[in-house]
Amino acid sequence: MIAPGGTVGILGGGQLGRMLAQSAAKLGLVAHVYAPEAEACAFRAVSRATCAAYENTTQLTAFARAVDVVTVEFESVPVAALELCGDIRPVRPGPRAFAASQDRRAERRLLDALALPVSEYRIVDTAADLEAALRALPGDAFLKRATGGYDGKGQLRVQGPDDLPRARAWLGGGPAILEAAVPFRLECSVVAVRAADGAMLFYDAAHNLHEDGILRASVVPAPLSESEQAEARRIVAAIANALDYVGVIAVEMFVMPNEGGGLPRILVNEIAPRVHNSGHWTPEACITGQFENHIRAVCGWPLGETLRHSDARLVNILGTEAAAWETLARSGSLTLYGKDGSAGTRKMGHITHLAPRGDMQKVDSTPAA
Amino acid sequence: MIAPGGTVGILGGGQLGRMLAQSAAKLGLVAHVYAPEAEACAFRAVSRATCAAYENTTQLTAFARAVDVVTVEFESVPVAALELCGDIRPVRPGPRAFAASQDRRAERRLLDALALPVSEYRIVDTAADLEAALRALPGDAFLKRATGGYDGKGQLRVQGPDDLPRARAWLGGGPAILEAAVPFRLECSVVAVRAADGAMLFYDAAHNLHEDGILRASVVPAPLSESEQAEARRIVAAIANALDYVGVIAVEMFVMPNEGGGLPRILVNEIAPRVHNSGHWTPEACITGQFENHIRAVCGWPLGETLRHSDARLVNILGTEAAAWETLARSGSLTLYGKDGSAGTRKMGHITHLAPRGDMQKVDSTPAA
Repeated sequence: MIAPGGTVGILGGGQLGRMLAQSAAKLGLVAHVYAPEAEACAFRAVSRATCAAYENTTQLTAFARAVDVVTVEFESVPVAALELCGDIRPVRPGPRAFAASQDRRAERRLLDALALPVSEYRIVDTAADLEAALRALPGDAFLKRATGGYDGKGQLRVQGPDDLPRARAWLGGGPAILEAAVPFRLECSVVAVRAADGAMLFYDAAHNLHEDGILRASVVPAPLSESEQAEARRIVAAIANALDYVGVIAVEMFVMPNEGGGLPRILVNEIAPRVHNSGHWTPEACITGQFENHIRAVCGWPLGETLRHSDARLVNILGTEAAAWETLARSGSLTLYGKDGSAGTRKMGHITHLAPRGDMQKVDSTPAA
Repeated sequence: MIAPGGTVGILGGGQLGRMLAQSAAKLGLVAHVYAPEAEACAFRAVSRATCAAYENTTQLTAFARAVDVVTVEFESVPVAALELCGDIRPVRPGPRAFAASQDRRAERRLLDALALPVSEYRIVDTAADLEAALRALPGDAFLKRATGGYDGKGQLRVQGPDDLPRARAWLGGGPAILEAAVPFRLECSVVAVRAADGAMLFYDAAHNLHEDGILRASVVPAPLSESEQAEARRIVAAIANALDYVGVIAVEMFVMPNEGGGLPRILVNEIAPRVHNSGHWTPEACITGQFENHIRAVCGWPLGETLRHSDARLVNILGTEAAAWETLARSGSLTLYGKDGSAGTRKMGHITHLAPRGDMQKVDSTPAA
C-alpha cells in the first residue's frame, strides 16, 4: 500500500496521464510523469517529470527507483519498458493486460478463451489468409491492423473478395484481423475498477456516439435493460479477473437489436487497459471518478464509491473546436488538456453536462459541444 | 482575459493554493506557486514554483513577469508584495480587499460604512480604550487582536471590567477590537464569486460547526429560511461590490434566533477575501467548484454555474486524524493536502459526504470524520 506522501509513477504524458496525476494529488500523493515528448501536456501539471524515450533504460531505471508504484496511461507502451520497471517497483496493471490489448489477435484469443461473444472474425497473418478471410466473411467487414490502431485509425472498411487488391495494398503485408460488421443497436462501454484483492466496482454503462471513428459523445445512462447492464458487467468482470487486473479497465461493446435472432445480446468490441475517454464524465457525475479510482487501485487503497448522482452527457472537444473555449466555458463543466497544437481531430478537452438523475431531457441532446 | 495555455501566479503555498492550482490545470492553464516555505504543499502539485520570501523583491518581480495574472490564497499576504506584483501584472482580488481583512478595525469600518449589521463592538487602540471598551460591553465578549488571527487564534473571551488585568496582559498593548458575544442560532457562511464585469454567482449557504475556534464541519443546505438566504446573499453582494472584488469571497455570518427581539436576523462575523474552507464541498456538490470559479474570475473567464446537485456534509481532517487515511478513504470523497507534519489541529485534508438533494438524513450526522 502506498501511503499519502508516496509517489505514483505514470508512463505517458497525454491527457489521461495529466488527469491521473491530478487525482493522485487529490489523495495527497505525488505524481511523477515519464514521457518522451518535451511538450507532453501532463508535464505542465506535475512537480516531477522525466522527459526521455521508453527505450532509455538509464532514465527508466532512475524513474522506477524514484517512485513507489508505476502505472500507464496508454496501451501501446513498450512491454520491455513495463518489464524493466517491474523489476524495480510494482507495475499496475501488469504487462499481461498490455500484451492482450497491443495485438488484436491476442485480444480475440483472450476473449475466445473466456467464451465471451465477439463479432465473427478471421486472423490474417499472411497474404493467403487475407484472401481466405474475405471469402469467409464476404459481407460488410472491417480489416484492422493487429497493432497500433486507435481512434478509427488502422482500419479499412471492405466488402468481400472484390476488395482484395485494395485491402492488400492498404495492409501492406502486416498482420491484421478481419471482423464482420454487426448491425448493432448501439455502442456502449463499461468502465470498471479492480483492486489488487479482486474487489471490483463498476460505473454505469455509457452510450457512445462516434464520428469518423472518434468518440464524440458519451451519454449516461445508456438505454440498456437491467439484464443488458448485468451482462455488460459480467463481461468486464470476466476479462479483468482473467488478467488479474489492477486499476481501471474499459470494455467497448456492441449492443444488438432486441430482435437479435439468437445472436448474443452484447458483443465485445475492444478492451482498453486504462482509464478511458468514455469515462471522462465520472469525476463530475459520480462520488469517485475513474482517475481517482485508478490511483486508489494501483496504490492498494480502498476503492471509492462509483455511485452516480447525476445523469451526464460528455462531449469531446476536437481540434480547432477548442478555439471556442470561452463559449464552451459557459456550457457545462469544462476540462481542457493544456495542449499546444490543435491540428485535425486532436482531443483538446471535454465538457460534461449534468442533469438530475432520470431527467435526461435536461441534458443538451445536440451532438456538437 | 487569460486564454488557455496562460499562467496563473498564486501567492501562498498552502492547501488553498494547491487546490487553486489544480483547478487552473483543469482549465488548461499553468499554475506558478510562490511561497517562502520549502515544504509548501502546493509546490508538490505544480510544474512551476518559486520558493522565496514575500519581501524578496527580485524573486517577486521575476515571478510577476513569468505569469499572466496574480492571485492570492491567504489574507495575510503583505500588501507591499501585492503592490509590487500589481505594477507588473493584474492582481485579483486587488489590494483593497486585503487591507480590509488584514485589520479587524478596517473590516468593521467597511461594514459600518455599508450599514451592514455586526455585533456591538469597540475599537481598542490604547490601554485607555481597553478599559472603556470593557465598561461599555460588560457582558460576554471576545477581545480579538486587530491583525494576524485565524482559526480561533488571537482571541480572548472576557466578561467585562473585572477581566481588565487579564485582558491587558494577554493583549500586550497592540490594537484590537472588543466584540459582544451574540446569542446566535447558528453560524453560516456564503461563498460567492464576482467577475471583473460585476457579474456575481452565489453558492448555497453552509451551516458551519466549529470546535475550539476551528471549522470542523459544514453542512449544506443550512437551515435558513428563504428570506435569510436572500439577506445573506445581499450582504455578500454589498461587500463584494463595495470592494470592486474579483474572485471568490466568503463571508461568515451569525444567524440570530427567530424571536430576535428587533435585532437584525443576520450579523456579519468575518470577511475572507479568498476561497474558503466552508466552500470545500463545492467541487463535489456543484456544477463548478469554488476553486475553479476563482480561477475563472481572476482570468476574466465566464463564471461557472454554482448550481448544487447534491446535499453535502464537509468534514475537516485535523492533525493526527489523517493517520486514519485508509478508513477515511472508505467514507466519502477524500481530499488530502500532501502535508508532511500533522501537529496539533493542522488542517490535513477533508471529506465530503454527498446525499441526494433534500435527503440530508443520508448524510452522516456525526461530527467526527
